[in-house]
Amino acid sequence: LGSGATMQIRRMLNGLPAADAAHLIDSSPPNIRAVLWQLVDSENEGDIIQYLSDEVQAQFLRQMDAEEVAAITEGLEADDVADILQQLPDRVIREVLDSMDHQDRIRVEHILTYDEYSAGGLMNTDTITVRPNITLDVVLRYLRRHEELPAMTDSLLVVNRNDQFIGALPLRKLLVSDPSVTVREIMDTDVEPIPANMSQRDVANLFERHDWVSAPVIDENQTLLGRITIDDVVDVIREESDHSLMSMAGLDEDEDTFASVRSTIPRRAIWLGINLLTAFIASGVINLFEATIEKVVALAVLMPIVASMGGVAGTQTLTVVIRGMAMGQIQRNNSRWLINREMLVGAINGLIWAGIVALAAGLWFQDPVIGGVIAAALVINLVTAGLAGAVLPLVLKSLKIDPALAGGVVLTTVTDVVGFMSFLGLATYFYA
Amino acid sequence: LGSGATMQIRRMLNGLPAADAAHLIDSSPPNIRAVLWQLVDSENEGDIIQYLSDEVQAQFLRQMDAEEVAAITEGLEADDVADILQQLPDRVIREVLDSMDHQDRIRVEHILTYDEYSAGGLMNTDTITVRPNITLDVVLRYLRRHEELPAMTDSLLVVNRNDQFIGALPLRKLLVSDPSVTVREIMDTDVEPIPANMSQRDVANLFERHDWVSAPVIDENQTLLGRITIDDVVDVIREESDHSLMSMAGLDEDEDTFASVRSTIPRRAIWLGINLLTAFIASGVINLFEATIEKVVALAVLMPIVASMGGVAGTQTLTVVIRGMAMGQIQRNNSRWLINREMLVGAINGLIWAGIVALAAGLWFQDPVIGGVIAAALVINLVTAGLAGAVLPLVLKSLKIDPALAGGVVLTTVTDVVGFMSFLGLATYFYA
Repeated sequence: LGSGATMQIRRMLNGLPAADAAHLIDSSPPNIRAVLWQLVDSENEGDIIQYLSDEVQAQFLRQMDAEEVAAITEGLEADDVADILQQLPDRVIREVLDSMDHQDRIRVEHILTYDEYSAGGLMNTDTITVRPNITLDVVLRYLRRHEELPAMTDSLLVVNRNDQFIGALPLRKLLVSDPSVTVREIMDTDVEPIPANMSQRDVANLFERHDWVSAPVIDENQTLLGRITIDDVVDVIREESDHSLMSMAGLDEDEDTFASVRSTIPRRAIWLGINLLTAFIASGVINLFEATIEKVVALAVLMPIVASMGGVAGTQTLTVVIRGMAMGQIQRNNSRWLINREMLVGAINGLIWAGIVALAAGLWFQDPVIGGVIAAALVINLVTAGLAGAVLPLVLKSLKIDPALAGGVVLTTVTDVVGFMSFLGLATYFYA
Repeated sequence: LGSGATMQIRRMLNGLPAADAAHLIDSSPPNIRAVLWQLVDSENEGDIIQYLSDEVQAQFLRQMDAEEVAAITEGLEADDVADILQQLPDRVIREVLDSMDHQDRIRVEHILTYDEYSAGGLMNTDTITVRPNITLDVVLRYLRRHEELPAMTDSLLVVNRNDQFIGALPLRKLLVSDPSVTVREIMDTDVEPIPANMSQRDVANLFERHDWVSAPVIDENQTLLGRITIDDVVDVIREESDHSLMSMAGLDEDEDTFASVRSTIPRRAIWLGINLLTAFIASGVINLFEATIEKVVALAVLMPIVASMGGVAGTQTLTVVIRGMAMGQIQRNNSRWLINREMLVGAINGLIWAGIVALAAGLWFQDPVIGGVIAAALVINLVTAGLAGAVLPLVLKSLKIDPALAGGVVLTTVTDVVGFMSFLGLATYFYA
């Protein structure tokens, strides 16, 4: 790159909103990423790094020492600093905290005591609190003493003298009310504060269902700890939604689209290895029927049809159930109905396509027996697929294994084994 | 159910927040759903129906006449009413609009003129506007004349005398500023208003990237039309994320988890039929090598391994690319790098696993030739999988075909055909 072009890119990059600059860096192959990052002015680094995807963020952070990390994160919100620090080894986190100014360090340390995936890890400490017995006029004058209210402030939080949360005063209520009334008279007391140990998935479901912009977080004594804002919840919703999609292909939801060849190979290799194992199991089943295949080669031609139809039907069921579980729709009391529906749908669709496959296969190989065998095997495999697709995620979840990650592998093993077994087994019976 | 129990359920159901009641109905099998809906008090029907999933909503709406629909949607926000009406046939929409009061009808009709999936279809018309030349004191007094500000109001919108959008006045700025300054002096002018015809996916990406709570919507003359709020954007983000997951299994993102057997069968049957067609293509390829398989039955035992490994590798690539496209990360200028990486990763992982498979197959069948053949076929198929997984979604998108829906089917056809062709073709060459 000529230095004129470099200057132009630098100006463009540093002129963009931080989120857009981060998106540009995220969307670049590794070599270009490194160049772009060097062109970011040091005063913009902190702003931009908080918007980078986790993997890219970690990569840039690994190249900095503790003082640099402390310098670029100065001025960021405490929860964003905590998110960034969690990418680093414990020793470095300690060093960065030691380099931070006292007040900031206390705030960040506090958030770091909570699990990254809990309400506590998601919250910010920038709440504006008021007492219930003051008038709105006092509140308005108190607010005017601030330089600026924190972003996403839609409510002031009302606390008693022990800092326990007792209600919320929405700005949109404050602004339309008579200044002489007290906070207590107009505050909302039906706001359910979020316990700090609630999982981020549950927090996201609450925000989504109740259309919140922000919500107070409390500890077990009702003491107000901070608040969670919708911008961070949106990231959780995106992550949780991506989790099912990526896991079903054996990928992490944080997977960097432009990860280097070197870091991509081992991740993909493991998944291929697991699937290789299941493929060998299926081959073992076929091998049991070598003699039959030797006699009727048409069986080798048709057997992938039975297995693949089972895999497709099972994946549909699995996907519906996994999404239903992610949305919190599936419990013990309604799962039986779901399992029955899936088996019934499998049976009926099995019968519909069995007829067509039987006709096609029978005509192709001029052999009605092979048509009958494939039809029977197809119905057996589609019912199995419906059963396995619905039951597996529930069983895996109760074993604390991620259904989205393990479900597909186990499912296709089942449908391959049952598919080959039923088709070649029936054929062995009829051609023996 | 005894009438005592029914009474209790009715009380519970009508006491829940509307979103929770809707979630309960969504999470129930069809027969229980119908009972629950009958137990909803008529004054709660509108509140609850807006939170129901699309399919369930449509099902209940079909049982109502136009006047009932008009009655239950009275008091809802205009954009929510528009969403509900869009579930109905045009003739019924007309009738419902005619039954609505004049002011509401105008608002809803206005939103209905925009595409359901555009910014216009997503916006609400409940903006609070102010003129630039008045003082904040006047603004505060003007606000106090309202009973209540609309939900999710984080900014007042500043318009000129032609109702053109010129800036935003955030409440959090209004509340800390000196009441004697004018709106013009403190308003934000760097807010980018959203054109009404922007797609909802682009709107969601903007909100996500810029952490907005609400944003103004304008027409081509800069005239302010309304505003979009984060609660509706969250639903779009959820929908868009679910779209990839569900489409890859041939399902609609609105798929009702507890859809009846009758409505589930035809949807699933179509997808099975499409996959049956591709399975027959794969069988056709195998059939070309009938004579070779007759000679070496071990080929029939091992051939699914090559095809399934290709399918797994290709699906990983496809998933990464489809997610990258959904996040707006993949453009023409970086797609070549991605295609090269995927082919290289496929080649190297192919070589790694080819060694192990060759050893296992060679030992199993006491035949080094079959080991060499499967190793070569595996490398060929994994490179093909990387290429197809990266190129297919780009090609399909440029043909305006949904890559998430069609990608998987086309991909597995490619990996099956290439897998069987390379493995059986090489075997035919070496065993002829």
